[in-house]
Amino acid sequence: MEEIPSTTVADTKEEVGTHSSVPPLLSRIYSPEDLRRLPVGALPVVCRELRDYLIKSLSRNPGHFASSMGAVEIIVALHYVFNTPVDRIVFDVGHQAYAHKLLTGRLKDFNTQRTLGGISGFPSPMESPYDTFVAGHASNSISAALGMAIADKLTPGSEKRKTVALIGDASISGGLAFEGLNNAANNPNDLLIILNDNEMSIDDNVGALHRYLSRLHTSVGYNRLRKKIYDAFRNRGYIGDHGKGRIMRFNNSVKALINNQQNIFEGLNIRYFGPIDGNDVEAVVKVLNEIKDMEGPRILHVHTVKGKGFAKAEEDPTTWHAPGKFDPHSGERPGKSPDCAMLWQEVFGQTLVMLARDNDDIVGITAAMPSGTSLGLMMKAFPKRTFDVGISEGHAVTFAGGLAAAGKHPFVAIYSSFLQRAYDNIIHDVSIQGLPVTFCIDRAGLVGEDGVTHHGLFDLVYLRCIPGMAVAAPMDSPSLQGLMLTASSHDGPLAIRYPRGKTPKMPAPVYEIDEIKALEIGKGRIISQQADSQTAILTIGEIGNEAMKAIEILKNGGIKADHYDMIWLKPLDDTLLKEITERYNCIVTVEDGARQGGFGSAVAQWIADNVADKQIKLKILGIPDAWIAQGSVAELRELAGIDAQSIALEVKNMR
Amino acid sequence: MEEIPSTTVADTKEEVGTHSSVPPLLSRIYSPEDLRRLPVGALPVVCRELRDYLIKSLSRNPGHFASSMGAVEIIVALHYVFNTPVDRIVFDVGHQAYAHKLLTGRLKDFNTQRTLGGISGFPSPMESPYDTFVAGHASNSISAALGMAIADKLTPGSEKRKTVALIGDASISGGLAFEGLNNAANNPNDLLIILNDNEMSIDDNVGALHRYLSRLHTSVGYNRLRKKIYDAFRNRGYIGDHGKGRIMRFNNSVKALINNQQNIFEGLNIRYFGPIDGNDVEAVVKVLNEIKDMEGPRILHVHTVKGKGFAKAEEDPTTWHAPGKFDPHSGERPGKSPDCAMLWQEVFGQTLVMLARDNDDIVGITAAMPSGTSLGLMMKAFPKRTFDVGISEGHAVTFAGGLAAAGKHPFVAIYSSFLQRAYDNIIHDVSIQGLPVTFCIDRAGLVGEDGVTHHGLFDLVYLRCIPGMAVAAPMDSPSLQGLMLTASSHDGPLAIRYPRGKTPKMPAPVYEIDEIKALEIGKGRIISQQADSQTAILTIGEIGNEAMKAIEILKNGGIKADHYDMIWLKPLDDTLLKEITERYNCIVTVEDGARQGGFGSAVAQWIADNVADKQIKLKILGIPDAWIAQGSVAELRELAGIDAQSIALEVKNMR
Repeated sequence: MEEIPSTTVADTKEEVGTHSSVPPLLSRIYSPEDLRRLPVGALPVVCRELRDYLIKSLSRNPGHFASSMGAVEIIVALHYVFNTPVDRIVFDVGHQAYAHKLLTGRLKDFNTQRTLGGISGFPSPMESPYDTFVAGHASNSISAALGMAIADKLTPGSEKRKTVALIGDASISGGLAFEGLNNAANNPNDLLIILNDNEMSIDDNVGALHRYLSRLHTSVGYNRLRKKIYDAFRNRGYIGDHGKGRIMRFNNSVKALINNQQNIFEGLNIRYFGPIDGNDVEAVVKVLNEIKDMEGPRILHVHTVKGKGFAKAEEDPTTWHAPGKFDPHSGERPGKSPDCAMLWQEVFGQTLVMLARDNDDIVGITAAMPSGTSLGLMMKAFPKRTFDVGISEGHAVTFAGGLAAAGKHPFVAIYSSFLQRAYDNIIHDVSIQGLPVTFCIDRAGLVGEDGVTHHGLFDLVYLRCIPGMAVAAPMDSPSLQGLMLTASSHDGPLAIRYPRGKTPKMPAPVYEIDEIKALEIGKGRIISQQADSQTAILTIGEIGNEAMKAIEILKNGGIKADHYDMIWLKPLDDTLLKEITERYNCIVTVEDGARQGGFGSAVAQWIADNVADKQIKLKILGIPDAWIAQGSVAELRELAGIDAQSIALEVKNMR
Repeated sequence: MEEIPSTTVADTKEEVGTHSSVPPLLSRIYSPEDLRRLPVGALPVVCRELRDYLIKSLSRNPGHFASSMGAVEIIVALHYVFNTPVDRIVFDVGHQAYAHKLLTGRLKDFNTQRTLGGISGFPSPMESPYDTFVAGHASNSISAALGMAIADKLTPGSEKRKTVALIGDASISGGLAFEGLNNAANNPNDLLIILNDNEMSIDDNVGALHRYLSRLHTSVGYNRLRKKIYDAFRNRGYIGDHGKGRIMRFNNSVKALINNQQNIFEGLNIRYFGPIDGNDVEAVVKVLNEIKDMEGPRILHVHTVKGKGFAKAEEDPTTWHAPGKFDPHSGERPGKSPDCAMLWQEVFGQTLVMLARDNDDIVGITAAMPSGTSLGLMMKAFPKRTFDVGISEGHAVTFAGGLAAAGKHPFVAIYSSFLQRAYDNIIHDVSIQGLPVTFCIDRAGLVGEDGVTHHGLFDLVYLRCIPGMAVAAPMDSPSLQGLMLTASSHDGPLAIRYPRGKTPKMPAPVYEIDEIKALEIGKGRIISQQADSQTAILTIGEIGNEAMKAIEILKNGGIKADHYDMIWLKPLDDTLLKEITERYNCIVTVEDGARQGGFGSAVAQWIADNVADKQIKLKILGIPDAWIAQGSVAELRELAGIDAQSIALEVKNMR
């Protein structure tokens, strides 16, 4: 899910992936039916070809590498054993699904993945009938697949369709996955859950369930004994559905005896099988064939290696989660360009360490994204005061509430679109009590290549209605630092949203702690004014830099417009808005977020509430009321009409 | 959490709970310190007095009865053993907390609970230092308490403070609770979790975890053996911290052997103790004393009887969850008054059954509220097509997405404030794919006596920004029926919000299926127009009935205003809004929801987008940007300025 170093469209459309360069077996697989015609002995070759192709393609058109490499065999085996797309595979966090895309008719478009007008980097039901459900946010596959499996039982003629949820060991630690597991045995269904256990999420996996799973598959003694018992029963022909279940359950008791372990899944009435080697495609096919027609919910635990087949990725899967471009032979990755500005994330991470150094009460929390958010910097500096709670956004926020109730000041760093998972926690567990929790909302606004599930477009709207919540967005790195300083001494909930990518000033300064200027809550600022200007452009956050460019464009055309960086969505700067509405008849608002109910909407409402004596023309620019797919941020801003050219045009048309 | 038959303030302020009627021991307990001075042998008397007092008080001033009665001993024991409020008790769903309120200085105010200006029906940190965290929504206690427990370990001088989370067996099935459990062993802390297992939520408990728990405490053979082993070790003085841990873990292995059961909590590295009888106060005190100073996260499983001490409530705890007024001796409850109108919930439930009868694809889903929402009617009529997923709002919605992806049309009935838990699921798992899921949002707007955690004020805002989501609110029962019919054939997500309580028309008709008129999406309606009227009142939903009254009030004062029931927040009725903005210079909008970003805000934005040639005065009425406590709906509407009198006054002032 993490950010991938961006690439231009021009870069990616070059020679990669034309059919001529496709390996021999793969070039004859246009759909899973072609795959199913091959003998099982050919599958290791298919897997090797898929890997070679992924390495070649992703080295040039970056994507999610390590998890896709690890899941190749499982995906091949699933399409081989099950009758897709009648039978359904539901992916959990789809960045493991590239092999699936290549096998389901999208090989020829694979070089367009994650680009404007191309195919999505995640499974997308809008793109292919083989993509059964949206899979950008973790932990949803069990609930969704359960719905499908139960629907089939209720639909005459569909009772025999199979549904498989493929979930990773990190995703299964999310509360939603647990709710799915807890409900899996309530109604008749034959759901098969495959737990793809590669012992990590994007960052190291955390939590008790993870340790539990690793005990399950590291117990060599147990596995040997189990194999012996299994083989003994098998040799006696004791291999029918019912018998198999009994063996497996017996195995679990043996395991509990030997290792003082207990099987959580069996405790939830889900039959447990495994663990098996998920990178041995023939073994996976064999086991799937054995259990696919069984009745009732089952879980198959497979163990895979992230980055499998590419040595550097196997050694360092975190770096290779989404490595950007690389040399397909040496694995060398291009160094940072020398002129590169600081990332917003780096400014956040470094500033938090400074604040934490000065204030023992500051603690840091993230949900499985220490490197993506740069909270890892604080984790390194203050390991006891920094918490990665895994894929558990709801817990992250309620846990922050508990820490705050006991006198701490948590900074919670979560991506905007994932924070939607914690909406009630923000309201109920933090804001009603007015607890001092600072939400550092990363990846706010259009995120680019990750597309529809990852854009952070709703945060301004869903936070604005919460009483007592302060909401701000910085236009540049000194403002982010100032807002964080303000937040650290604010006795209540405060949210700061900022985008992925680079801060505007190159090189951006990161001020030392005593140079940081706190920003007053609810105070905006004037960026530029010209005499007799008729139009005010009001912006919030980083998109203000587009407005600055728009003003230059307008200036060149002889048109004057002034620019206000409002900084705060809530509270709005009443004083400044009063001055603005007195001074101008035309106002343009710009935000990198949903138009419906966001910053511009708040300004419209403010005018309704406060301006009785004149008519003000108000133009609200923001993300239109539609789902936005993938593309570069620049391309998507242009499409949404919030780039410099579009802003300039609106100002021009308004006069 | 469910609705309690409402009572007027006048009703509740009568003689109940004056100190003269307080039983002897209780009358001397002004704080837990007084309790702690009593000998342990006096505690059963305290419990009896608490129960008598609860029966007497709640029979007149209704509240949550059965769960509060069941938790008396646990609460007494906790305050007796722990040094509250230095040590902290974190309640999970606070409607079990009445005994806690009575013991912590609020006995004299108890007769004001759930009324305007009185004490809250739930724990409230704003009300008492003994109320450590907000506890209106289920499953948050473990995460919050873990935050406190870890904060103490980080705070010099606080390392020895104790934190106890008290969670029910229904609440612990929520994903948030699992996320808390999964993180409990990650960082040093001495959190004690008490699992109050009364084998039900408001409605019957569901899910595998529940069945698992009941196996744990119904295994008599295991318990006998365990007791024997425990006693044997104890008699040998093997009772220190470390030793106890080993015994208990050994016990769990024994249990797994005997019952082929496994302990989920031990699997998560949380030491498990129990089950014990939670209604035996001396036994609970004894066990708490034994385990309170142990290190590391622990769970104590106690078994209690909901409604304990009041026969009728023990027999039928669902009815007695929140029974309304009753005779304290006989348990008789007043019948429905003969003139009573239909509840919104009944109209919903009956209509859904009719729709489901006509359309096999319709399925119903709720999250632990079949009786509160009246989805129970469909459960009775179509048990296979109706799903109560327990306290799992996120799963409920994603599961609905899966059902819809496989051809079903789910109606998901969840209370507005609880649906906040499923915000990302609505966005990611339903709306991005445009799946046909109908959200029936119950308890929308001000809910009255349940107060701040239960008002459903944000739904209009948080749904409005979701592309492709249709959002409507009916003013009367025929509109609700029409909207449900519309939704049943709509191929996309659609939300219908309606309040708790009675529909406006008495007796309200519930039309048969062939009499129901579908409402066109995005079409509002004219309720009343008068010649030369200068002001239009635009309403959405049930609050329109207040506007109707306001127009009568204005008419009596010689002032004309017209009324439009817009029905749809999204899409807004462009045609009607065009007519309205051409016809009037003054517009008042009214909504029973947050002012910031809701219906009025949408109208302001529509005017900014569409009206260039005239100035329109717009007054937006709605719930102000503040937390609203408990009171009757009528009182709270008056406070918020959205009752008939306030609307009339605004119209008058505007002209």
